[in-house]
Amino acid sequence: MTLPLRLYELTGADDSCRFSPYCWRIRLALAHKGLPVETVAWRFHEKEAIAFSKQGKVPVLVDGERCVTDSWAIAEYLDHQYPDRPSLLGDASLKALTRFVNQWVADSVHPALARLILPDVHAVLDEADKDYFKRTREAAFGVSLDALAAQRERSLQAFHEVLKPLRSTLAVQDYLAGAAPAYADHIVFGAFQWARVVSAQSLLAEDDPLTAWCERMLDAYNGLARQAPTAAER
Amino acid sequence: MTLPLRLYELTGADDSCRFSPYCWRIRLALAHKGLPVETVAWRFHEKEAIAFSKQGKVPVLVDGERCVTDSWAIAEYLDHQYPDRPSLLGDASLKALTRFVNQWVADSVHPALARLILPDVHAVLDEADKDYFKRTREAAFGVSLDALAAQRERSLQAFHEVLKPLRSTLAVQDYLAGAAPAYADHIVFGAFQWARVVSAQSLLAEDDPLTAWCERMLDAYNGLARQAPTAAER
Repeated sequence: MTLPLRLYELTGADDSCRFSPYCWRIRLALAHKGLPVETVAWRFHEKEAIAFSKQGKVPVLVDGERCVTDSWAIAEYLDHQYPDRPSLLGDASLKALTRFVNQWVADSVHPALARLILPDVHAVLDEADKDYFKRTREAAFGVSLDALAAQRERSLQAFHEVLKPLRSTLAVQDYLAGAAPAYADHIVFGAFQWARVVSAQSLLAEDDPLTAWCERMLDAYNGLARQAPTAAER
Repeated sequence: MTLPLRLYELTGADDSCRFSPYCWRIRLALAHKGLPVETVAWRFHEKEAIAFSKQGKVPVLVDGERCVTDSWAIAEYLDHQYPDRPSLLGDASLKALTRFVNQWVADSVHPALARLILPDVHAVLDEADKDYFKRTREAAFGVSLDALAAQRERSLQAFHEVLKPLRSTLAVQDYLAGAAPAYADHIVFGAFQWARVVSAQSLLAEDDPLTAWCERMLDAYNGLARQAPTAAER
């Protein structure tokens, strides 16, 4: 182990604006394992800076001679490489169900949340990233960012519909993974941290069990996620 | 242990029409633990038959002097009472994530599937149950059974939207719980067995990873679920 590890993180115009939900789950995963990390701000147009990883997306984790991409693969790598530190994915069965959570966030939560906050993401980006982002996201969602900004009420309703099973679960247990957070919590919380960093929209009511869980996740690992400046603070 | 256990199961007009998704998860859970069970056909209007359970819903499990209701509580009871047999819920972390699957099915899968098959459920019921069922379900969903029957195409699309994370998970692992089924699989498969028993509608494409998983679940426990007559067979 060559400490610290190095993590390339998606960043807005402001260097402190680290908004990627996929990078946040890895930041929390590294904290969970007690592994120090040096983060590197990276923006969509800086493809050359991560060309060594042989692909074009972050998170990219560099551990000495090794380079790992894709958040799920990074979580697996961390558990495999640092087995004596607190586990992220647990045994085979827990890992299998954590993968379902991973897919639920990818296939249900992120698409619903994106419709709410993509206009906010666009607003925090570096000028050199804005055109690329607008073009690719509008193509992917089949709708303009302006149209999304105009239908927030409907999008918020759909987002809450998707969140129902998370809410009813967290109404009876402190974390998705039980009494303490694990990678399943990192995956899901990454989405809320994405929203928190880019958007001033209020997505959850104060008395929502999800709000209490978000507060616990913001406090976890010595307040790691809470230290990130919010949209309101920048 | 006074073997066999006794399970009250929701039943249509035909005694072999055991369609409740909540009862099916318990049938599979009992098979998983290798516990023999004697099932008792029960219909909505037979409240007196389960009055001893001090509530009005099935599944009701009777184990000697003990009576347990609510599928989740029954799964917990079985693991607690028969700890030497294969576990349903696993350790605290696995149980916590299995609860999320339980809530995902209750809050997302069942409502979407119900809109597709409630008219089919109504058709298989005992005459004495039909009015009660129609009235309560139409009130709960805010739509008539006839209207639901007329919008199946749209409902099927919404159901497939909900299933995305299940599909992408089962594309890369054999069971939700990993290499072998556990209670998480019983919970989700109960929904598909519900549809299979009451409805002749084709819900999944042949090349859908979910079809392959359903086949594995139909084969599991010596083909327990496959032995139930389907809507097409009755």
